[in-house]
Amino acid sequence: MLNPADQAFVAHLAQAVPGLSLGAPEPRYLEEPRGLWEGRGGVVAKPADTAQVAGVLRACHAARVGVVPYGGGTGLVGGQVQTEGPAPVILSLEKMAAVRALDDHVLVIEAGATLAEAQAAAAAQGRLFPLTLASQGTARIGGCLATNAGGVNVLRYGNARELCLGIEAVLADGTVIAGLRRLRKDNTGYDIKDLLIGAEGTLGVITAASLRLFPQPASLGTAMFVVPSPAAALELLALAEARMPGCVSAFELIARQGLEFLDEVGPPVHQPFAVRPDWMVLVEVGLPEGIDPEEALAGLFEAAGALVEDGVIAQSGAQRAQMWTLRESLPEANKRIGSISSHDISVPLPDLPQFIAQAGAAVRTLGDFRINCFGHVGDGNLHYNVFPAPGRSRAEYANLRGQVKDLVHAIVDGFGGSVSAEHGIGRLKVPDLERYGDPGKLAAMRAIKAALDPLGIMNPGAVLR
Amino acid sequence: MLNPADQAFVAHLAQAVPGLSLGAPEPRYLEEPRGLWEGRGGVVAKPADTAQVAGVLRACHAARVGVVPYGGGTGLVGGQVQTEGPAPVILSLEKMAAVRALDDHVLVIEAGATLAEAQAAAAAQGRLFPLTLASQGTARIGGCLATNAGGVNVLRYGNARELCLGIEAVLADGTVIAGLRRLRKDNTGYDIKDLLIGAEGTLGVITAASLRLFPQPASLGTAMFVVPSPAAALELLALAEARMPGCVSAFELIARQGLEFLDEVGPPVHQPFAVRPDWMVLVEVGLPEGIDPEEALAGLFEAAGALVEDGVIAQSGAQRAQMWTLRESLPEANKRIGSISSHDISVPLPDLPQFIAQAGAAVRTLGDFRINCFGHVGDGNLHYNVFPAPGRSRAEYANLRGQVKDLVHAIVDGFGGSVSAEHGIGRLKVPDLERYGDPGKLAAMRAIKAALDPLGIMNPGAVLR
Repeated sequence: MLNPADQAFVAHLAQAVPGLSLGAPEPRYLEEPRGLWEGRGGVVAKPADTAQVAGVLRACHAARVGVVPYGGGTGLVGGQVQTEGPAPVILSLEKMAAVRALDDHVLVIEAGATLAEAQAAAAAQGRLFPLTLASQGTARIGGCLATNAGGVNVLRYGNARELCLGIEAVLADGTVIAGLRRLRKDNTGYDIKDLLIGAEGTLGVITAASLRLFPQPASLGTAMFVVPSPAAALELLALAEARMPGCVSAFELIARQGLEFLDEVGPPVHQPFAVRPDWMVLVEVGLPEGIDPEEALAGLFEAAGALVEDGVIAQSGAQRAQMWTLRESLPEANKRIGSISSHDISVPLPDLPQFIAQAGAAVRTLGDFRINCFGHVGDGNLHYNVFPAPGRSRAEYANLRGQVKDLVHAIVDGFGGSVSAEHGIGRLKVPDLERYGDPGKLAAMRAIKAALDPLGIMNPGAVLR
Repeated sequence: MLNPADQAFVAHLAQAVPGLSLGAPEPRYLEEPRGLWEGRGGVVAKPADTAQVAGVLRACHAARVGVVPYGGGTGLVGGQVQTEGPAPVILSLEKMAAVRALDDHVLVIEAGATLAEAQAAAAAQGRLFPLTLASQGTARIGGCLATNAGGVNVLRYGNARELCLGIEAVLADGTVIAGLRRLRKDNTGYDIKDLLIGAEGTLGVITAASLRLFPQPASLGTAMFVVPSPAAALELLALAEARMPGCVSAFELIARQGLEFLDEVGPPVHQPFAVRPDWMVLVEVGLPEGIDPEEALAGLFEAAGALVEDGVIAQSGAQRAQMWTLRESLPEANKRIGSISSHDISVPLPDLPQFIAQAGAAVRTLGDFRINCFGHVGDGNLHYNVFPAPGRSRAEYANLRGQVKDLVHAIVDGFGGSVSAEHGIGRLKVPDLERYGDPGKLAAMRAIKAALDPLGIMNPGAVLR
């Protein structure tokens, strides 16, 4: 059993780690975006450097006090709020936001920097750090790595794990892993970096990272194409990748339901098609010199034949921004409507159309719903969100929520899919992991958790019970 | 202490795993390509399926008998031969080579298939599995993953780890991890896949993998460019990537010494430049439709100005093959000359020219050597091999071998580089890992090894002592 971060412990921590910023938790450290949980915390510690992080963990380990690592607080699965048990130390990395090194290939940056700050540092060097999320102004690098964040550019550039060459981290007992390698190839021992990435702060705290930078595309092309079906969207993606291998950086599916939500509740956006299409895709390509991106997208449109029914190709940066604004406003519209149950799922790419058909039919047997199914279709990753029928409230569906979720997850599992494609497990999906996770993998996870955090102080209750 | 796989244990194993192929180790299971070590083995077990693998490991775990997983036997660091201690079970996956599933996106294949077989399966689907190694006809998928193999296409497509979406594996106690996910995004728990990839069989045995497939490039362009210096090579790479972001699939540095070795001892190859240049690069680009690759490379040549002194652009598949034959003959020429000390190193890309200069000067202070420094310069990964002066034998340098190695590795370490960029640790580099590895990372590795293989039966003596 853990001990609370009570007054006596906080006094001890202040002595054990000289100069450490300590304060009572303001509300923002105890809230999370879904409003589902209220966090606990005895104190917020804001270390200024890695040595202070190690000092905090050593003290917490010795006193068996829980530690909840805190980044930008934007996580959607409750990984950042401990809702039960003795009050933990909330360990915010916000004071550690420095760029430690920067060249054309690698950005070494501390975990407390926001994703937008990391992108800006890369841009100032004339380079691209491609991780892109709606919450990038608030989400911090440590949290992006702890949750292996995804977003819209995974198709071309990979997720946070693939974009990270090395990490500095502190384990539960205060051991510092000095792994800020700036190497593309390094086969010296086990992949501790990738183990800590995606572990959601349950095995240690990431304090800094070496991130891969890329050349900015010589030219960007962006388009919205109306497709007759999700299957056609996948065929179009295959065609785009065959014509421009490695150059398709985003391929987002958008359903009519999402467009109608925007019409109904906003935010106000420019809709390119007067008649809202059943399905459309937002395509972005980054091309080499010597190809005009508008011509390349027009060529794709021509070659697509019946796969594309209508299309708009951005003719300017402003039009490109309009298209992305529409895409990025979908979560806000969803929020305004208020979902009954939201799912961040992935299935093998070829199974995606069948999943959409099967899940839609199954959910509708449970009642009268609206389904907004959209997202990173090029990665097989959909946000599959279920809403009340027009004029009805979420409350009316309260007794169906669990059934909807179980049904969608069971169908995902039947396709060998994932019930958490990019948001992680946090506390929300612990039961799902137990239910759908491979028993062998879970056994290995528990053994590793016990080996690296034998007292269970790191982010108690997240990922593993 | 482990027990030997003696007659009594083999008899027990035959009973415990009905139908298991068991036989005395033929010499090939006890040899390795460098001829440095002789392996031990009480028996070679060739399981036909995952259940048999699990049965072997359960039996070995219960009897505390060591297990050496065996792929194609092509590893260069002795990971496949146990040289000391009680005779282990050699666990060859060669009977498990089936393609389990194949679509445009994913190849699910068993660990005993050769890399060439995996490439061929992808090609038969009209797709590309880009992992490419000189030993691909012999190296097996299980070994490629266990060592996180690299090769010439890492620059564009990533190493084995990045090309693998999921694995099926068996842990030391026989626990099966059923992780053949076919998903690009899956954030459900710790990254056990990437932990087992690169663990060189010391944490478990990979029995099958889901591998990412890519579109074949619409058109390939290949060239050899003479550059005045390694620094110019890097500037040329930056220029190529700025002009064709994401499309440069190989960028190999070749030194005059290597070309002269080919002249001296073969294999016979077509040399494009009559006067052997000090430095040249082999560049390959895979481009979208709408760009002629020869024109793109000619454009790069023009734009490069003084960065390129001479160049040849392949005008046919045959010329392209000639260029690659030259590159791929370098290891054989090295072997025929006979190196004193070979190093598989990486340094941060911007430091590469300085590393070459510094290491060359330092090595030459030790004696009269020839240095062939070549390789995957786009990844910061060089094969830095040191040879006798003309007319002298390796034996004359026997007392310098250790000094040369220590000197090169110390310089690599000074740049924050890796002493094993792509070959792994095996048994050869265990002392290097202990010397240059981060103590925090080593502590975490040992904790994980103890957690997943508490009796130490998996590949005893490899990676960790």
